[in-house]
Amino acid sequence: MSRIIRFVHPRFFAPEAQTSGDLVTLPLEEAEHLTRVLRLGTGAAVRVFNGSGDEFESVVEAASKDAVQVRLGHPRAPAPEALLQVTLAQAVLKGDKMDDVIRDAVMIGAAAIRPVLTARTESSAAIIEKSRRQDRWERIAISAAKQCGRAVVPPILEPVTFEDLIDFLLHKWLSGPSIMLVEPGASKAAVPFSELDVEPPNAVTTVIGPEGGWTREEVEAAAVVCRLVTMGRRTLRADAMGLIAISAAFSRWKEF
Amino acid sequence: MSRIIRFVHPRFFAPEAQTSGDLVTLPLEEAEHLTRVLRLGTGAAVRVFNGSGDEFESVVEAASKDAVQVRLGHPRAPAPEALLQVTLAQAVLKGDKMDDVIRDAVMIGAAAIRPVLTARTESSAAIIEKSRRQDRWERIAISAAKQCGRAVVPPILEPVTFEDLIDFLLHKWLSGPSIMLVEPGASKAAVPFSELDVEPPNAVTTVIGPEGGWTREEVEAAAVVCRLVTMGRRTLRADAMGLIAISAAFSRWKEF
Repeated sequence: MSRIIRFVHPRFFAPEAQTSGDLVTLPLEEAEHLTRVLRLGTGAAVRVFNGSGDEFESVVEAASKDAVQVRLGHPRAPAPEALLQVTLAQAVLKGDKMDDVIRDAVMIGAAAIRPVLTARTESSAAIIEKSRRQDRWERIAISAAKQCGRAVVPPILEPVTFEDLIDFLLHKWLSGPSIMLVEPGASKAAVPFSELDVEPPNAVTTVIGPEGGWTREEVEAAAVVCRLVTMGRRTLRADAMGLIAISAAFSRWKEF
Repeated sequence: MSRIIRFVHPRFFAPEAQTSGDLVTLPLEEAEHLTRVLRLGTGAAVRVFNGSGDEFESVVEAASKDAVQVRLGHPRAPAPEALLQVTLAQAVLKGDKMDDVIRDAVMIGAAAIRPVLTARTESSAAIIEKSRRQDRWERIAISAAKQCGRAVVPPILEPVTFEDLIDFLLHKWLSGPSIMLVEPGASKAAVPFSELDVEPPNAVTTVIGPEGGWTREEVEAAAVVCRLVTMGRRTLRADAMGLIAISAAFSRWKEF
């Protein structure tokens, strides 16, 4: 079998990386990844991105077990951001399914992820806070950005209740049109995705439900502020819907 | 928290189910699912589909630990099949990643899945045969069909080498146009997905590479028989590409 040799320099996240020539300390997790997982040390050529869109060719200047400093070199162009800014408003899923959704959404190019607490979400703001899930989601977003080549780490916004999300959408605090994915037959107001405008919006919010689906009340409340759409007539898993919806939107509006 | 009560009857796979009124024996795995996992018994109302598109309201007539017989009742309409017939030609991935790809492809509505052995596939026909992976993939396809509501179990075709796949495509043994997904920059011949014809084909073959990507030689060989396409400019994981590509195709050609 063939061997795969990769010459691409490994990428690390350092929010303080701003200007070529600066000496920057990596966050602890990134330092551990560099020294313990990849076993790199002083002199190693790496790339450093700041999560806000900037990336630099860099060199490790000092590396101990838990502290790594890198010298930022020339700026370089990371993987471009999508022109269509998708916010994924995702009902919090069980266990590590939500981790997978966040990882996939960052990879494909979502601009932001908004966890939502719905009637059938088996979690609460208190549980999320106690279990530090928000921290975990942010680490997953960083990790996914490292792998997919983005220099932007999309924000994992504060979880909101479904009612607050509808309020947000009603007051247009989120930019662009909103679409909510519903099962075939969930509402007479629902249309196939192909019936949406062909003209590309600048931004879109896609609202995805939990494993148990939406309640009738939620669908009715959303119909006032969202387009209700279906995607085919098979039953799709909740943890796959985000990736499917963003893929469909990127295809329809020529991001792909 | 709200409780979710589902009134949908559980679905079971029985390839022998053909005609209302017949008494049909479930395959062993399905019988175990019915008795041990769902703890159903004689008199239970279930649905039975045959993998070829037929589905029946049914009743369990006899149930022991390892043998279940069901009486087929009225035919019913399962989740409709996609009009656009997508064959996913997928390089065999490592470990259980291939399982996930098959599960997702069946769920979203692929018509067939063709495992492919490429230069950078870390598997061989001999390993696949020895480890009975084909059997495993077929079980996963059945399980996914049960969950997504399809009465068709798409075939997991025999694994072929990349060279054989190109031969198939060259001789049009696979119907419809073929697209091969490549990384941005992999070939000057590659175009963004949005540049493909807008007119919907009846069928399309999507060719997806392994974790390590295509070799230069593979890309060149494929360029003769496939459109080479890119999907955005982020680096997408090999195990997510199938779902992304089928979602994009369903969106572009109005299956969604």
